[in-house]
Amino acid sequence: MDASWSPVPPSRVTIVDGFWKRWRDLVGTKTLFHQFQELRGEGQIDALALDQKMHRGRAVGDDWYWGGSIFWDSDLAKWLEAASARLQQTKDPELEKLVDDIIVRLERAQQPDGYLNSHILTWRPRHRFKNLRDLHELYCAGHLIEAAVVHHEATGKDTLLSVARRYADLLVERFGNGPGKMNGYCGHPEIELALMRLYRSTGDTRYLELSRFFIDERGAAPNYFDREAVERLDRREFRPNHPGSPYAYMQAHEPIRQQTKVVGHAVRAMYLLSAVVDVGVVIKDASLLETAGRLWRDVIDTKLYLTGGIGSASENEGFTRDYDLPNEKAYAETCASIGLFLFGHRLLQTRLDSEFSDVMELALYNCILSGIGLDGESFFYDNPLASRGTHHRIPWPWWCPCCPPNLARLISSLSGYLLSEGLEGIAVHQYVSCEAAFPGIRLTIKSGLPFAGHNAIEITTEDPSDRTLALRIPGWAGQTTLKINGQSQNVEAQNGYVHLRRVWNNGDKIELNFEMPVRQKFARFDVEADRGRTALSRGPLVYCIEQADNGPDLDHFVLPGQADFHPVEANDLLGGMTLLKGNALRETTSAEKLYTEHVPETEPVELCAIPYYAWANRAPGEMQVWMRRSA
Amino acid sequence: MDASWSPVPPSRVTIVDGFWKRWRDLVGTKTLFHQFQELRGEGQIDALALDQKMHRGRAVGDDWYWGGSIFWDSDLAKWLEAASARLQQTKDPELEKLVDDIIVRLERAQQPDGYLNSHILTWRPRHRFKNLRDLHELYCAGHLIEAAVVHHEATGKDTLLSVARRYADLLVERFGNGPGKMNGYCGHPEIELALMRLYRSTGDTRYLELSRFFIDERGAAPNYFDREAVERLDRREFRPNHPGSPYAYMQAHEPIRQQTKVVGHAVRAMYLLSAVVDVGVVIKDASLLETAGRLWRDVIDTKLYLTGGIGSASENEGFTRDYDLPNEKAYAETCASIGLFLFGHRLLQTRLDSEFSDVMELALYNCILSGIGLDGESFFYDNPLASRGTHHRIPWPWWCPCCPPNLARLISSLSGYLLSEGLEGIAVHQYVSCEAAFPGIRLTIKSGLPFAGHNAIEITTEDPSDRTLALRIPGWAGQTTLKINGQSQNVEAQNGYVHLRRVWNNGDKIELNFEMPVRQKFARFDVEADRGRTALSRGPLVYCIEQADNGPDLDHFVLPGQADFHPVEANDLLGGMTLLKGNALRETTSAEKLYTEHVPETEPVELCAIPYYAWANRAPGEMQVWMRRSA
Repeated sequence: MDASWSPVPPSRVTIVDGFWKRWRDLVGTKTLFHQFQELRGEGQIDALALDQKMHRGRAVGDDWYWGGSIFWDSDLAKWLEAASARLQQTKDPELEKLVDDIIVRLERAQQPDGYLNSHILTWRPRHRFKNLRDLHELYCAGHLIEAAVVHHEATGKDTLLSVARRYADLLVERFGNGPGKMNGYCGHPEIELALMRLYRSTGDTRYLELSRFFIDERGAAPNYFDREAVERLDRREFRPNHPGSPYAYMQAHEPIRQQTKVVGHAVRAMYLLSAVVDVGVVIKDASLLETAGRLWRDVIDTKLYLTGGIGSASENEGFTRDYDLPNEKAYAETCASIGLFLFGHRLLQTRLDSEFSDVMELALYNCILSGIGLDGESFFYDNPLASRGTHHRIPWPWWCPCCPPNLARLISSLSGYLLSEGLEGIAVHQYVSCEAAFPGIRLTIKSGLPFAGHNAIEITTEDPSDRTLALRIPGWAGQTTLKINGQSQNVEAQNGYVHLRRVWNNGDKIELNFEMPVRQKFARFDVEADRGRTALSRGPLVYCIEQADNGPDLDHFVLPGQADFHPVEANDLLGGMTLLKGNALRETTSAEKLYTEHVPETEPVELCAIPYYAWANRAPGEMQVWMRRSA
Repeated sequence: MDASWSPVPPSRVTIVDGFWKRWRDLVGTKTLFHQFQELRGEGQIDALALDQKMHRGRAVGDDWYWGGSIFWDSDLAKWLEAASARLQQTKDPELEKLVDDIIVRLERAQQPDGYLNSHILTWRPRHRFKNLRDLHELYCAGHLIEAAVVHHEATGKDTLLSVARRYADLLVERFGNGPGKMNGYCGHPEIELALMRLYRSTGDTRYLELSRFFIDERGAAPNYFDREAVERLDRREFRPNHPGSPYAYMQAHEPIRQQTKVVGHAVRAMYLLSAVVDVGVVIKDASLLETAGRLWRDVIDTKLYLTGGIGSASENEGFTRDYDLPNEKAYAETCASIGLFLFGHRLLQTRLDSEFSDVMELALYNCILSGIGLDGESFFYDNPLASRGTHHRIPWPWWCPCCPPNLARLISSLSGYLLSEGLEGIAVHQYVSCEAAFPGIRLTIKSGLPFAGHNAIEITTEDPSDRTLALRIPGWAGQTTLKINGQSQNVEAQNGYVHLRRVWNNGDKIELNFEMPVRQKFARFDVEADRGRTALSRGPLVYCIEQADNGPDLDHFVLPGQADFHPVEANDLLGGMTLLKGNALRETTSAEKLYTEHVPETEPVELCAIPYYAWANRAPGEMQVWMRRSA
C-alpha cells in the first residue's frame, strides 16, 4: 500500500489557458448565474425561510416527495461549492454577494442545536432523523459541509464553515456507537466523504471517526433501515425500483467489506466508495482499500460505458447485470460519472497507476462534459450513447436538479484534480494548461489536449531541485516522445507513469508529445448492445456521428472492420474542435416489401464524427457512438 | 369482385398421407385427450354444473377475472369443435362419448330462454349482457355456435346445434336495431363469424342479419361501451394496456369501414375481419371487402413476422406501430396467426390470388405449428423469433388456454382449408396428400411438402369432365415444371395460380414440381430488429438455428450477405425433416477487456438450421431466426 500521493489543492493550481480555461470561464460567467436563477425560481433559496407560504404558492402536501424536495438543500450546497471554487479563481463581487446572501439565510435557518434542513424543518419537523433511509438528511448535510470547506479555503471566511461545523458537531453528538446514540446511516451516501473533507480541513478526528462509523455500520444486520421503520410505525414494504435485495439499491444489503459486485444506485455507490478510500487511506485499513479496488475493477471491467458513463438503468438510476450496457436507453447519469471521477481520484492517492487517471480522463471528457451544453446553460441528466433525435438538453431538470450544480462544481474545481504530490515528487495526471506551485518549485504546463497531443512543462525554481516528476502516459497515446531541454529521453512507463528523477534547474523544459491515432473500438461479445458495432476515439475523446453532419437514419451506415478515419480541424464548428472523417458504406433501401431476397446494396459515403461531448448542440437529430460494422 | 370461389368442406376432403396426416393423427390420438384432461382438471367442464362449490375448491371471489375465467366456455367449445372435426375423419367411440357427455352438461346448463354462460350464471347472474366490453359473453357464444355447426356436420347429430340455435335465437331476439333491442356488440369479436357459419349451415338469414348488425354498429358514436358503463354505474376509466384510443384495443374506436390501419388485440382484429369478409361476400358489400383488403395489406406490408406471426406486443396482445417486429420479445400469439390464416381463407373466397394462400401457408407451417410441440402435448402461447434459452413449451397455459384447443381445431379441420370450388372449376391452394370429392370428379393429391417439392394429382371421373383446375404456384417456388400425362406444359400463372382448362379423363395425371432453393431473407431497413441480420427459408418453411445443433451464443455466428446453405435430409431428427447446412463465420471472443481495438477474429464454421416449427423440442437452449450477417 502506497498512500503517499496527495492531491495538489486548487489553491495552488491555476488553469491559465486552453480548453478547460474556456469551460471554466463559461461556467463562471454564465452557468453559475443561470443556475442561481433556476434555484431562486424553483424555490431552493426561499425554502431556507422555513416558511411554507414561500414555496412559490404551490399546492404541496406532506407527501414523500414535494414541498420542496428532500434534496433541495443539496442542490443549493453544490451551487455554493461551485461558486466558492469560482471565487478562488477569480474575484467576482456580484457572485460573492449571492454566496454571502445564501450563507446568511443558512445561518438564520440553522436551529440552535445546529440542525439544518429546509425540507424537514418546513414540512415535517417531527421527522428529524426518523427516516434516514429515504429522506436524504445526512446527504444534504454532506453537501453543506463540502460547500463550507471549499468556501473557507477559497475565501478565508468562516461564515459557512461555522454553520457546517455546528451541524457536523450535532451529527457527532447524535450518531455513533456510544450510549444514547443512533447507529444509523444515510440512505444516500455523501456525508461520509464530506466528513473526511471536513476532517482534512480542520484536523478534528471526530469527523473521521463518524465517517468511519457510517461506513463500518452500513449494511450490518439487523438492518438499521428496518429498525427505524419499525420505530416510526411504517409498515409499508420498502420496494425501490431495483432488482434483487432492496437495500442493495443503497449499498446497505451487506457490510461494504463483503461486497464483491457494485450494485444499486450508481451515484450512491460512487460516493460511498470514494469515502471508503478516504477513510482507508487515513486509517491505513487494507480491507477497505482492497474492497474499493475490487469494486473499482468490477465497474471498469463489466459496467463502464465507452464514454465513462456508469449506471445503465433508469429504473434504479444504477447498475444492473454485468455487460448490460444499452446505448439508446443508457441512463449514464452525469452525477454518476462525476462520482466515478471522484472515486478514481481517491484511488489515485493509494497508488500511482493510470488505470485510475485514464478512467478519470475518459469520464471527464466524455460522459461528464456531455452533461452540459456548449452554451453553458443547458444540461443532460442522462447521457445516452445513441439517440433517435428525441434526447435534448434542457435548461433545468427541475424534478431533480442534482447534475447541473454538480457539473459546475467539478469544472470550477478541476484544478484540484490534475496533480498529486508525495515524498517522491510530483505527479501529473491530467494535461491541462496550468500553473502549479510547490514548495521550492513551480510548474508551467501547456497542453494541446484534447485535440492535439503536444504538452510542455517548464520548471521555475530558485535553487536546483532534486525530485521526481511522474508523468502519465495515457492509454490512448500512440508513439510518445519525451524531451528534456531538447534532449530525447527514453519513455519507460511504470503503471502508466514515466518517472523523471533529476535535479531540476530553473528554466528546464519538458516536451511530451503523444501521437493521437484514431482508435477503432470494439466491445467484448458479452456487451449485447455493441455486438456487430464499432466506435471511434482519438486521444481522450470518444466520437459520435450526428444527424446534423450525416443526415438521418444513422443505422444505414456500416463501417469496415478496419476503418480509416483521419482528424480534420474545424475551428468554426461548435467552438472549435477536431472532427474525424472517413469512409463507410451506406445501405440503400430499395426494398418495398417487408422481406426481400436481395442483400441490401451499399454505396460508399464519407462520414463525419464529432466529439461525443459536443453532440446535441445543433438542430435536434439522431446520434450514435456505436455504429454498425461489417464482420 | 369475383366471389365465386367457395371452400370445399372437410366432409369432402380426406387427408390420407404425409406430413399433415401425421399431425392430424397426433392431435386426434394424443392432443385431444391431453387437452380434455387439462380442461377437466382446471374446471371448465365442472363449471357447467353452475355450482360454485365445484370450482376445484379455489378461493375465488366476484372479481374481474377468476371464478372461473370469463372465457372458460370458449376453451371448451374450441375443444368440442376440434373433437367433432376429428370424429368426422375417424370413428372414435371414446372421444365421441366425451363429446356427448359435455353436450349433455351444456343442455342442462342452458337456461329456459336459451342463455348459456357458466361464468356469468355461476358468479354474477345479474350481470347478463351488462358488460359486453369485458366479459366475453358473445365471444363464448360464438365459439359454442362454431362447435355446434362442426359437430352437426361431422356427426349428423342435432344435440349441440339445438343448444347453439336456442342461444343464437336469444341473441337475435335481444340484439339489433329494433325497438327494445340492445344495440351493443362484443368486446372480443367472434360471434360475427360464428353467426355466419350458422347462417351458412342453416340458411337462416336472421343470423346473417345479426352478424351484419354487429359489424355495422361496432365503433359507432356514441360508443356503446361508454353507454353500457353508464348504465351499470361503472365509473372506472377504461384503460386497456394499449397505446392510443382505448377502444382501438378492440377495434371499436371507429366504424370498421373508416379504419385504415390494423390496430389493437391481434386475435380480435383477425376474427372481426374474417367476419367482415364473410358478410361482405354474402351481401356483396364492396365497402366491407375493400376495408378487409386494405387492412389485410396493412398487416402483410407492415406488421407480419417472417414466420407468419402477427401482434408483436405482449402489452396489448396485439399490434403496435408499423415495422415494430422485435424478435426475442415477439408476442406472435398462436391464436393470432390462426386468425390471420382464417382471414386469408375468407379473402381467398373473394379472389383467387396467392397473396392470400401464400400467407396462409406461411402462418400454418411456421408460427401456428410452432405453437404445439412434437409430442402433441405441449404448447407455446407466444412464438418469439429468438430466445436465450428461457422460452419453453408448457403442458397448458392455464391462465388463458385459448391457443391449444384453437390449434387442435385448426389441425383437425385442415382438410377444409385446402381447396376451393367455383363455377369455373376447382382451385388447389395447399398441397397436402388428400382425396377430394366433387360432383362427377375426384382428385387424389400427393405432395412431398413441406420438405420436397413434388406434387401429383390424379383424376378419377366416370365421364370426361370439362373444367378448370387452378393450381397455386407458391411464391417460394424456384423453377416449376408441370406435366399432364407426362407432357410438359407451360407454367403461366395469373395471380399465383396456373389455370388448366381441359376435358379431364379418368386416370389423367398432373405432375407439378417446385424447385425448392434455400432462400436468404432480408428485412426492409425499417424493421430495426432485423437490421444487419438475415434469415433462411426453404419452401414454406422458415428455418432457425438452435443451440442443440450449434452450441450456445448464437449471436457469435455471422452469415455472409450471400450465404450458401443446402438441404440435408435427417430422417432420425425430430420426427424426420430436412435441415439446412452451410458455412458461416464465428466471431471468437479473445477480448478480456470490456473494450478493445482488435477487430473480433472469425473462424469458419458449419451451421445447422432446423425448421422453425420444430424448435424447443430438445434440451432448452437459444434459438434465432434472424442471424447476424456481414454487410
